[in-house]
Amino acid sequence: MKTKLEMLSFEKIVERVRKLKSDTILIIVDERVWSLYNDKFSLEEKITDKKIIFWIAPRGEESKRISEFEKCIESLLEQGVHRNSHLIAIGGGALSDFAGFVASTILRGIDWSVVPTTLLSMVDSAIGGKVAINSRFGKNLIGAFHRPVNVWINTEFLNSLSEEEIKSGTGEVLKYAFLSKDIYEMIIQKKGRNEIIKACANFKLDVVNEDPFEKGKRKILNFGHTLGHALEKASSLKHGVAVVWGMAIFFLIFNEGKYLNELKALKNILGWGDELPPWNVGAVPTNNIISYMEKDKKIVSGDTIDIVLVEGIGKPVIREYTIEEIKSKVKSGLDESINIIL
Amino acid sequence: MKTKLEMLSFEKIVERVRKLKSDTILIIVDERVWSLYNDKFSLEEKITDKKIIFWIAPRGEESKRISEFEKCIESLLEQGVHRNSHLIAIGGGALSDFAGFVASTILRGIDWSVVPTTLLSMVDSAIGGKVAINSRFGKNLIGAFHRPVNVWINTEFLNSLSEEEIKSGTGEVLKYAFLSKDIYEMIIQKKGRNEIIKACANFKLDVVNEDPFEKGKRKILNFGHTLGHALEKASSLKHGVAVVWGMAIFFLIFNEGKYLNELKALKNILGWGDELPPWNVGAVPTNNIISYMEKDKKIVSGDTIDIVLVEGIGKPVIREYTIEEIKSKVKSGLDESINIIL
Repeated sequence: MKTKLEMLSFEKIVERVRKLKSDTILIIVDERVWSLYNDKFSLEEKITDKKIIFWIAPRGEESKRISEFEKCIESLLEQGVHRNSHLIAIGGGALSDFAGFVASTILRGIDWSVVPTTLLSMVDSAIGGKVAINSRFGKNLIGAFHRPVNVWINTEFLNSLSEEEIKSGTGEVLKYAFLSKDIYEMIIQKKGRNEIIKACANFKLDVVNEDPFEKGKRKILNFGHTLGHALEKASSLKHGVAVVWGMAIFFLIFNEGKYLNELKALKNILGWGDELPPWNVGAVPTNNIISYMEKDKKIVSGDTIDIVLVEGIGKPVIREYTIEEIKSKVKSGLDESINIIL
Repeated sequence: MKTKLEMLSFEKIVERVRKLKSDTILIIVDERVWSLYNDKFSLEEKITDKKIIFWIAPRGEESKRISEFEKCIESLLEQGVHRNSHLIAIGGGALSDFAGFVASTILRGIDWSVVPTTLLSMVDSAIGGKVAINSRFGKNLIGAFHRPVNVWINTEFLNSLSEEEIKSGTGEVLKYAFLSKDIYEMIIQKKGRNEIIKACANFKLDVVNEDPFEKGKRKILNFGHTLGHALEKASSLKHGVAVVWGMAIFFLIFNEGKYLNELKALKNILGWGDELPPWNVGAVPTNNIISYMEKDKKIVSGDTIDIVLVEGIGKPVIREYTIEEIKSKVKSGLDESINIIL
């Protein structure tokens, strides 16, 4: 089933919920989002002909523990879920990961929709059906592919985000600018925020429709992530910020620094000022990067990893490298004393 | 992906495992089965070029708790699972439900194969990819559809089953006899046990291939189960035994007692002697049956339930009834003082 994506006001979202062909609606919502926005929805007032069951989840990755999963699913089952119930996730990426995993497993899977409330989830994590909870041994190690029926985007939520969160989402937008010439042009032409968000979300949706289980093309969405994940952990960066630095280092290693200026220009247009790297200036944490990459690699198995490179703006390519090749590329290509400012 | 089904010796099963294109094999096995049969496999001796990770699970439904799921999946992740790992479930229906759910969720799903060790699982539960664990509020309420790559059947396992367990599996075989004229004939012609098992397993596989998500035809496999589930709970019967009584009552209600003699004849050929009903003779627990059916119905939602009836041997049909219609059918069609002996 393909996902339907719409940009909607709060009123329209409520109307969409009312029109769902289900008499039972399960709402899983981030506690902070709910405290700020529940009056905008007033679901119980406005929808009186459906049973509405709520689960208010803790913020962020806290919600993604197995113990939370158990508490949530048992509570929903106790209150009376059936196979035609429809689950709605309202929150950022962690929340929709969690709620989507609940939707994928409760009664062997029920339909669900997402209302993403962060920039990152609007352009990335709410789309594509990769849902998961966390293990003690890593994030997202227990999960499923379970695509939402609807993604309802209301950019009003962005008004309550911190600068950090906006930056993180902007990182993923910057990624799309290198995967899609159209999105690159839109940013250069200073199109409106909503238009750019819609284009990014639709770009991801198209890729996911082509390759739902990440066997091929979907891998391009990992551009910037191979190193990004390593930096996210090594330097405790926000996800999207780490992705931007992951792209920057790849441009250095694989493109001889080409596209760094473009990255900087796009960044500035999107309101993200110049900044120093997240490590000590002139001391790229090459060894840290390599050891985190090796850790990540374990999960994939085999002796090679697929690396996404850019051969031109809007021209991503997937290349298979052995871990040894990557290591030597990183070691030789990355002058540790380099002083990147983005 | 379609499931491949083979009848194999222990030696051949080990060979199949050796030939799997994965360097890491996860074995989830029932503790009793393992204590009886691990020397037949000697996997660690015979397969030295793969990493083999074990999880010995408690017997039966005990294994299907969320807490066991958490312990198992964390242990496997700790020992180093990757996306190309292959999981093998060795045990009865509860074990393969559990292990299949682990396979469906670990790293968002890895390949798995089943070695069913009970008659019931050989002909039914190991096939079809309905995997699940239990909630406090009912069995199999948390699960997925995740079809095994292989089902490897070795009927030698049947030698260590109790009479009760064989009876339970025979109940499902009897169900197939009314869904498939071929299987009916095979039993009447007193074909060998292995041949009948293979035919039942393949019949189910064909139905599942046609309708993997139980939207239509797959529902015929629920013949005898609507009342069977109710009786299973009301009278603490083994699953397959309850299914047989569920079929018998349906023949009384919907077929004016037709096919009861056929059922009895088949039962006797399969070595299951005459027996009294599981309730007090002359006191069919009509109210109990109805209240359990209503409970089951909740999960499906809507005002109707799909009932599988038989219009002839090998001619199942799916009929939609409202719960009220079924209630009155059961009440009027079922003479509580009737004295069925099967």
